[in-house]
Amino acid sequence: MAPGVLIQNEKPDGHAISKNNVGDARSLVEAEKRLHPIVLKTFRLLIADLCQQFKGGHPGGAIGMAAIGVALWKYVMRYAPHTPDFFNRDRFILSNGHTCLFQYTFLHLTGYKAMTFDQLKSYHSERPDALCPGHPEIEHEGIEVTTGPLGQGVANAVGLAMATKHLAATFNRPGFDIVSNHTWCMIGDACLQEGVALEAISLAGHFRLNNLTIIYDNNQITCDGTVDLTNTENVNEKMKACGWNVVDIEDGNFDIIGIVNALENAKQSDKPTFINVRTVIGLGSKVAGTAVAHGAAFGPEDVANMKRANGFDPEAHFVIGDEVKSFFEGLPARGQGYVSEWDNLLSRYSEAHPELASRFRKRMTGEIDPVWRDLIPKPGAFPQKPTPTRASNGLCLNPIAKDVDSFMVGTADLSPSVHMSWPGMVDFQHPDLRPNCGINGDYTGRYIHYGVREHAMCAIANGLAAFAPDTIVPVTSSFFMFYLYAAPAVRMGALQRLHVIHAATHDSIGMGEDGPTHQPIELAALYRAMPNLLFFRPGDSEETAGAWTAAIEARGTPSIISTSRHAVPQLQGTRREGVARGAYVLQENERAAVTLLGVGAELSHAVDVAALLKDRGVEARVVSFPCQRLFGAQPKAYQRDVLRRHHAPAVVLEPYAPNGWERYADAAACVTRFGHSLPGKAAYKYFGFDAESLTEKVLRYLDMVKEDELLKHEFVEL
Amino acid sequence: MAPGVLIQNEKPDGHAISKNNVGDARSLVEAEKRLHPIVLKTFRLLIADLCQQFKGGHPGGAIGMAAIGVALWKYVMRYAPHTPDFFNRDRFILSNGHTCLFQYTFLHLTGYKAMTFDQLKSYHSERPDALCPGHPEIEHEGIEVTTGPLGQGVANAVGLAMATKHLAATFNRPGFDIVSNHTWCMIGDACLQEGVALEAISLAGHFRLNNLTIIYDNNQITCDGTVDLTNTENVNEKMKACGWNVVDIEDGNFDIIGIVNALENAKQSDKPTFINVRTVIGLGSKVAGTAVAHGAAFGPEDVANMKRANGFDPEAHFVIGDEVKSFFEGLPARGQGYVSEWDNLLSRYSEAHPELASRFRKRMTGEIDPVWRDLIPKPGAFPQKPTPTRASNGLCLNPIAKDVDSFMVGTADLSPSVHMSWPGMVDFQHPDLRPNCGINGDYTGRYIHYGVREHAMCAIANGLAAFAPDTIVPVTSSFFMFYLYAAPAVRMGALQRLHVIHAATHDSIGMGEDGPTHQPIELAALYRAMPNLLFFRPGDSEETAGAWTAAIEARGTPSIISTSRHAVPQLQGTRREGVARGAYVLQENERAAVTLLGVGAELSHAVDVAALLKDRGVEARVVSFPCQRLFGAQPKAYQRDVLRRHHAPAVVLEPYAPNGWERYADAAACVTRFGHSLPGKAAYKYFGFDAESLTEKVLRYLDMVKEDELLKHEFVEL
Repeated sequence: MAPGVLIQNEKPDGHAISKNNVGDARSLVEAEKRLHPIVLKTFRLLIADLCQQFKGGHPGGAIGMAAIGVALWKYVMRYAPHTPDFFNRDRFILSNGHTCLFQYTFLHLTGYKAMTFDQLKSYHSERPDALCPGHPEIEHEGIEVTTGPLGQGVANAVGLAMATKHLAATFNRPGFDIVSNHTWCMIGDACLQEGVALEAISLAGHFRLNNLTIIYDNNQITCDGTVDLTNTENVNEKMKACGWNVVDIEDGNFDIIGIVNALENAKQSDKPTFINVRTVIGLGSKVAGTAVAHGAAFGPEDVANMKRANGFDPEAHFVIGDEVKSFFEGLPARGQGYVSEWDNLLSRYSEAHPELASRFRKRMTGEIDPVWRDLIPKPGAFPQKPTPTRASNGLCLNPIAKDVDSFMVGTADLSPSVHMSWPGMVDFQHPDLRPNCGINGDYTGRYIHYGVREHAMCAIANGLAAFAPDTIVPVTSSFFMFYLYAAPAVRMGALQRLHVIHAATHDSIGMGEDGPTHQPIELAALYRAMPNLLFFRPGDSEETAGAWTAAIEARGTPSIISTSRHAVPQLQGTRREGVARGAYVLQENERAAVTLLGVGAELSHAVDVAALLKDRGVEARVVSFPCQRLFGAQPKAYQRDVLRRHHAPAVVLEPYAPNGWERYADAAACVTRFGHSLPGKAAYKYFGFDAESLTEKVLRYLDMVKEDELLKHEFVEL
Repeated sequence: MAPGVLIQNEKPDGHAISKNNVGDARSLVEAEKRLHPIVLKTFRLLIADLCQQFKGGHPGGAIGMAAIGVALWKYVMRYAPHTPDFFNRDRFILSNGHTCLFQYTFLHLTGYKAMTFDQLKSYHSERPDALCPGHPEIEHEGIEVTTGPLGQGVANAVGLAMATKHLAATFNRPGFDIVSNHTWCMIGDACLQEGVALEAISLAGHFRLNNLTIIYDNNQITCDGTVDLTNTENVNEKMKACGWNVVDIEDGNFDIIGIVNALENAKQSDKPTFINVRTVIGLGSKVAGTAVAHGAAFGPEDVANMKRANGFDPEAHFVIGDEVKSFFEGLPARGQGYVSEWDNLLSRYSEAHPELASRFRKRMTGEIDPVWRDLIPKPGAFPQKPTPTRASNGLCLNPIAKDVDSFMVGTADLSPSVHMSWPGMVDFQHPDLRPNCGINGDYTGRYIHYGVREHAMCAIANGLAAFAPDTIVPVTSSFFMFYLYAAPAVRMGALQRLHVIHAATHDSIGMGEDGPTHQPIELAALYRAMPNLLFFRPGDSEETAGAWTAAIEARGTPSIISTSRHAVPQLQGTRREGVARGAYVLQENERAAVTLLGVGAELSHAVDVAALLKDRGVEARVVSFPCQRLFGAQPKAYQRDVLRRHHAPAVVLEPYAPNGWERYADAAACVTRFGHSLPGKAAYKYFGFDAESLTEKVLRYLDMVKEDELLKHEFVEL
């Protein structure tokens, strides 16, 4: 099979795209149509067998989507099974991740080396090294993002398509479309109901991401029954209203030719495309078209009957005939053809545009320009006046974001609050957009207005980061409290080891008048417990620099840097190296009767309390504790030296639910109810977080433990 | 002013509605139109003054929405300022809660007693008892739900409208429309971007909630600039596609008559209505129509200029002229007229339908039929075979839900998984809906298919609960992991003291093959830290009964009952009274060298480990620990007696992040990474959670502390 021929096509907006030779795909699919029935049958029976093997899994959707898969993997998608990380490959996202066998089976058929026949059969097995988990996982060859929690994949796909647009606008030059891939996102009925997908769909239409196609497996079945139990909207009209090109496929079970045409046309659209493909879940089984086909094996009898009805031996399992094998066998070679073409293109580009090509290669390999270390203000270089740590965020990141192209910074509509913009920054926008407020942009832009869509923001950021490791380092921003809206996406970033940095502000009752709906009390407990996430609360500008340094260095780990709305003093002795260790001694005192653990926006309260305690004849040490996880990773000796709990009890001062601090402290001045709408200082006073009240609490605690020895071994809330 | 005349109107679907005498409202608004300019000016200048007073707050939106407010509070809404809890009042939800001054000022003008002039001026003050927090709060007179986190209010409004539909269908009889109120939801541009609102909008269209009207303050401004920076969709077409009636108001700044007409027409629609009202944010200020008008006071000079331009004295503040006062002064009397009319109707209804009226009055006052205590299976009455606790959920709740009308149970498309359906149950649906799967329903139905919309499910449940305390007790259900999608709504329920019960399943790595995306590791840490929420992990059927008992008794506190997918054994000695205390001794042992804390799906592991330890010569106590918050509320003596930490160290066994267990345990067998896709038993083994591995861990811990005394005072992860 000849590799597709690369064609240059100048689009009216000046962005060149390269694409398959469409004629080739369309003539090929016609030429091979006699093979399609056996391919589809084989695929569907294989799915039935794979679920029957261990009597579980999700057969129905994968079976229904067979023809879509053939259209994609055989005819339309540009990818290279033997070079899975080919930089300019099309990205395929299975947002309905429970149908993972669909993807695993095509990975096997198309020749991905890791997906051996044995591995394919590991689905639902007890093999701990299986490449076929219950939902696709990014760690495995051919999988672009981990999916499963519904709707996430749609937003990830939007991020991937934005990454392409951005890299293309930045690096492509006439005749050199070095970044030109398309993003294909498969969804089911459920993804269209999830808010995160609806947010992302709206934004994708706004950005006119014509390099993005959603393929809707419209089988009208979810777990509870037919979709019309819960959703009777006109989805096509809704998508059109959101700025999408909409195409219908009536016979999605068999019409491979129609699907190929629709997919090829999608690549020519000036908008993102939504292909509404009618399929039958569990086609050919006795539960076809019903919810029962969704999440359970069909049973041996039904599987045998399906085989009989399709002319297969009911006693033979996992059968892939020679005709079917040969149907797919040329795909690795075709893929290597794409790779060679592209390598050649990149060589010629390097000659024509050597400086640009050098930058591009660095970005490709995820090199973040090390100049970033020089751009963060040095110790002592910050303004010494009291500064909100949200402003410190900007002081740290903005010089980097301005000069280091890897960073794409965005906000969920809080630009005036988050301080994350820089002089000369360009918005990421469709170049033709002319907003009424006059802020134009184009796809080279690295500042993203996500709108009031916190959840999609973080899920899209995951997509930007998933394009290739550290090619783009996305930074999101919002109020800390609204990272609860985004939490499922933050989690997926941590699970996938995506390098995303979340700049959260207004992280304390000190944020004031907005009141309990905006004052985080329990949220830090979630992020401190979340695996593979660094959660920082820096105490001043110097500590903020430490948090950004650690977050940028933490390849493979996302971070949340959580900062204050209100000004906090610049403290003596804070140091970024201390932040890197999670906690450190800010004020040592050999005669200390108590260690105060100060955190983030309230670190200065700990310093003030230590001074007031001294006036009352009590010596105190102060430990700054910006990041529990980094401290937990320190050697035991360091931890003991910082905490010195065998010498004096430790009291943490943080106006949050104290859950988890019990590990490091004996008592807490904390807040275990929701907040209260008051100006910041008044709120601190109301909750006993002014220095005087805190001092009284610490003194009371020291008295209490004298009276009741048992309290020494019990965590006390003050 | 004459109270509106109640009219009976038989709708084609057989549901009678009662409404204002529309002619009255429309002729009144015409008759008073000469007063509208001074009323609007007065209102807008008052807002400017209220923000200027303490130099903060959100003036722009409230000023832009002035004419909408006059149309609502003066002409269209049926409410009673002096009987704020009038059962059949229209409900008004300010989803764009930051514009709270809009609502506070109308509450003052229309005569709500609590909202005195002094109180109105408390906005952004340091008064801890202010009724004007930065966002509306449910505790205060005239506020239906707490709003602020954007989009929530839309879903709450959907829940309130569903409550009306349900109560009307259940209790109204020909000639007796005792429940007939309308729900009005005010939104801004941002609410239309939030996923939770988009989910709820889709469902409201599906349910054809024609008693719900969204009024869109379309000022095309958000914090970052004009809305077209981030959203260029055709919102009217999108709403139509979602099954909504759409109406445009071109001059929303002044056209009170047009708005009144639109609002009155909305009450006649056969669909929910979306009124798209064009306004100018901060109208009349020098920053009118810009993002700057959104979240900051205008400055004294601009406020003075606004007054001059409108013929007001620039030196006079908070001016409400007599004409304006008299414009609003009849509203309390009108409201009391509505109340009397309705009281009379209820009296006649009680005569005509005494049994029904008796039931209705009980529901009105929030009486949950005490028979529920008899319906939960008694101790010993559960099947003794191993049972998934998700099935135990059904064994406990379904008999109650079947017979006690207060409960409305729903699921985010997981009916086959959550076991929460009962024989003869009726779905909540529009009565004309004929789903393809054949499951019809009507508005009397108490089983809600929310679709795959976890976040909206919980926010809608908040609305159902907010209709009146315990008139409806909503129960939601989904996989535990997806309560992360719903977390912002669960939080709002806890903040508002709404009695909602969330039945979460699949809460352990033991859920198996779905893998790390579905296995909760860190989520319990969030809910254990969340104020005013009870988070339960029951260990068997008996403990599940304890959890449901506590959750139903916990008026004013929502609960999550988190259960297993897989079967767990029925244990000796578990008891519901123990669950009520949060933790209790399951197996006492005076010679114990260690206390094992067992939790939920893994409680039986603790029992098994105790037996294996005995074989190894180590005596152990076992404490069952289903609810940290309830245990934390016990007297210190009880806590010490249960834990006995001065006698032996405690080791908690839970395959979750251990954050927070440090308070009650010295060590944990826990999981601090994400999960792994394996069959349930294999997953337990993989993470060292089989009894043998756990036993080794406990033995190793006991050895470790012998070698290093300091470890006794440090929490150890095993």
